[in-house]
Amino acid sequence: MSPPSTAAASRVPIPNAPPSPFEVTATARDAAARCGRLATAHGVVPTPMFMPVATQATVKGVTPAQLREIGAQIVLSNTYHLAVRPGAALIRELGGLHRFMGWDGPILTDSGGYQVFSLAALRKVTDEGVRFQSHVDGKPMFFSPEDVVNLQVDLGVDIIMVLDECVAAGASRADAERAARRTLDWARRSRRVEVTPGQLMFAIVQGGTFSDLRRQQAGELVGLDFPGYAVGGLSVGEDRATTMAMAEETVAALPTERSRYLMGVGLPEDLIRFVGMGYDLFDCVLPTRNGRNGMLFTSRGRLNIRLARYARDEQPADPECRCYTCRTFSCAYLRHLATTNEMLGAQLASVHNLHFYLQLMRDMQAVIARGAFTPWATERIARMTEEEA
Amino acid sequence: MSPPSTAAASRVPIPNAPPSPFEVTATARDAAARCGRLATAHGVVPTPMFMPVATQATVKGVTPAQLREIGAQIVLSNTYHLAVRPGAALIRELGGLHRFMGWDGPILTDSGGYQVFSLAALRKVTDEGVRFQSHVDGKPMFFSPEDVVNLQVDLGVDIIMVLDECVAAGASRADAERAARRTLDWARRSRRVEVTPGQLMFAIVQGGTFSDLRRQQAGELVGLDFPGYAVGGLSVGEDRATTMAMAEETVAALPTERSRYLMGVGLPEDLIRFVGMGYDLFDCVLPTRNGRNGMLFTSRGRLNIRLARYARDEQPADPECRCYTCRTFSCAYLRHLATTNEMLGAQLASVHNLHFYLQLMRDMQAVIARGAFTPWATERIARMTEEEA
Repeated sequence: MSPPSTAAASRVPIPNAPPSPFEVTATARDAAARCGRLATAHGVVPTPMFMPVATQATVKGVTPAQLREIGAQIVLSNTYHLAVRPGAALIRELGGLHRFMGWDGPILTDSGGYQVFSLAALRKVTDEGVRFQSHVDGKPMFFSPEDVVNLQVDLGVDIIMVLDECVAAGASRADAERAARRTLDWARRSRRVEVTPGQLMFAIVQGGTFSDLRRQQAGELVGLDFPGYAVGGLSVGEDRATTMAMAEETVAALPTERSRYLMGVGLPEDLIRFVGMGYDLFDCVLPTRNGRNGMLFTSRGRLNIRLARYARDEQPADPECRCYTCRTFSCAYLRHLATTNEMLGAQLASVHNLHFYLQLMRDMQAVIARGAFTPWATERIARMTEEEA
Repeated sequence: MSPPSTAAASRVPIPNAPPSPFEVTATARDAAARCGRLATAHGVVPTPMFMPVATQATVKGVTPAQLREIGAQIVLSNTYHLAVRPGAALIRELGGLHRFMGWDGPILTDSGGYQVFSLAALRKVTDEGVRFQSHVDGKPMFFSPEDVVNLQVDLGVDIIMVLDECVAAGASRADAERAARRTLDWARRSRRVEVTPGQLMFAIVQGGTFSDLRRQQAGELVGLDFPGYAVGGLSVGEDRATTMAMAEETVAALPTERSRYLMGVGLPEDLIRFVGMGYDLFDCVLPTRNGRNGMLFTSRGRLNIRLARYARDEQPADPECRCYTCRTFSCAYLRHLATTNEMLGAQLASVHNLHFYLQLMRDMQAVIARGAFTPWATERIARMTEEEA
């Protein structure tokens, strides 16, 4: 592991964040949906908000200038990936992750817990931490919960996620309990690590598919008084009804006066539902990954741009959309780029899909501020899901 | 083949170009280098100018908005590739190539002569034209010289290139003579095809590595009075001294009052030399292709960004450069993107390399207007070639 940065002088400077990082600014009268402001050292994030995923310090195919243009407010990167390559100490040396990737807005880094479990080879989890081999070169590595916080101190990010232990869908109650207990213990240890003033640390609720376990874990984490809470370990293979039930029961156990982040989800129609439950923050690779595969999200459903039906289509991918892609190019052109495997096709689809997700968040902010969320949500979900191309 | 568009009504509308498409605005007092203005239906192109290559109706990895930002004035696309996929008639239906690719500046299309010879399978060249199989799906196709002009009428481009026959480096005099004679005959036939008012047609000088043949062909083409002339069939495998000699002897046989375009070259230091000979227009895949491979052109030479020496380098790729990439990102970050195979690395390197080529053209325009080209050219070439990283 890279050595933790103990000397304050070697830290990436972080402007001070205000004392209360989150405030609720509006609440829907017919749902748990709310608007808020999450104050970070690199700016205030209006919520509900979606975070474009920049796993390796880049949102795939999208420049920081384009991210600004589509209204991104905060991006998510990944401690595991950056620790493996190019190394958190190197990024610290170069002035921190913001300067490194040319993004001066807020950054949240996932702790790498999920990646260790999904990517790394020969992993061994003990109460101490996780021992594993890098998925890039097989190099043996070890992360304690404290290491993971210190890596994020090195990166100089705005929001630090604690190391957590994920269990697979279908894990037994005993396994889910053990992982939840360990996640709680790690959260306690993480909370004691000194971070740079201005950095916020969020805890992660695990508990598998056992709602009482999740509620109990949420309660215990809340007792540690974190600036924000995330819900992890969902959408990892369990059925959809379980995802929705777990998400809803867990958010109810988290304090309304803290931001609540549902990790790694999901489709646009599901984000509307999760906002209706009271979640504030989301991240997901779908807009960029599906964009690279020629799938575009639109107000009328998903569209596979490779289909022959788009060969002569002069319309933009989504006539309701005001992104650069839809303002400039026809479906016929996007199809041409996809069928010729031109890189620009992936870029333009990623820009559109991210804009679509971010516009959806802006729409929800406006709707919630006006009061009634549910009729709007029902109508939007219906339009999105009625015709799939 | 797609049917030629005979009805004027089905043509892509082209604003009228002024009667004299090219004027020389300055000439160096110590070299044949000159500045000019090439008036096209979509705008005036200051020369000397480099044309970014958009073979399949996209400059690989670069949006039209980014092309504008780096100062691109004209782009080059390819009749062969577009005829194969998605088809020139389809692009005409969709309003022409400008609208299709979202670029409202001038477009020149290569005729596809070179691509038929380098890409297509089972090609058979006769005086009639070229019969070949598409490199995409093996579909049998036939291009007459008239077809190729009509395809470019369908595309609605600003500058139409006539179909030519290339010979390989090392071709015998007899082969070079036959190809030159055929190219001349095709140019004569092309000249008789009615194009949309405002479209310019350029002829192409062939002649292999035989300077008397090239001079003779240039003279005969000039007798047909084309709005502009290109020199083709160089940098196809012959040695460098031959390229330079052929380029210099051929340009001397072309009229000073017409724009002169050297096709498919080259390295930045060579472009300086070719401008010194009196060439006005260039195109080359090197800025984008090398960019995708992690090679960046700089004022101090070429740089392989994958090298370990750049891992901790906080400097931009070229401290003298003002492009988005150099204003925003360090060599360390560009290296990280290259080593992790992130698409953004190819994009940022392509933007930088194209900006480098275009800035070089702007620098030459300024130098020529001031009068003395040679001392500046000698110094720039020396700096570019002294240290190769």
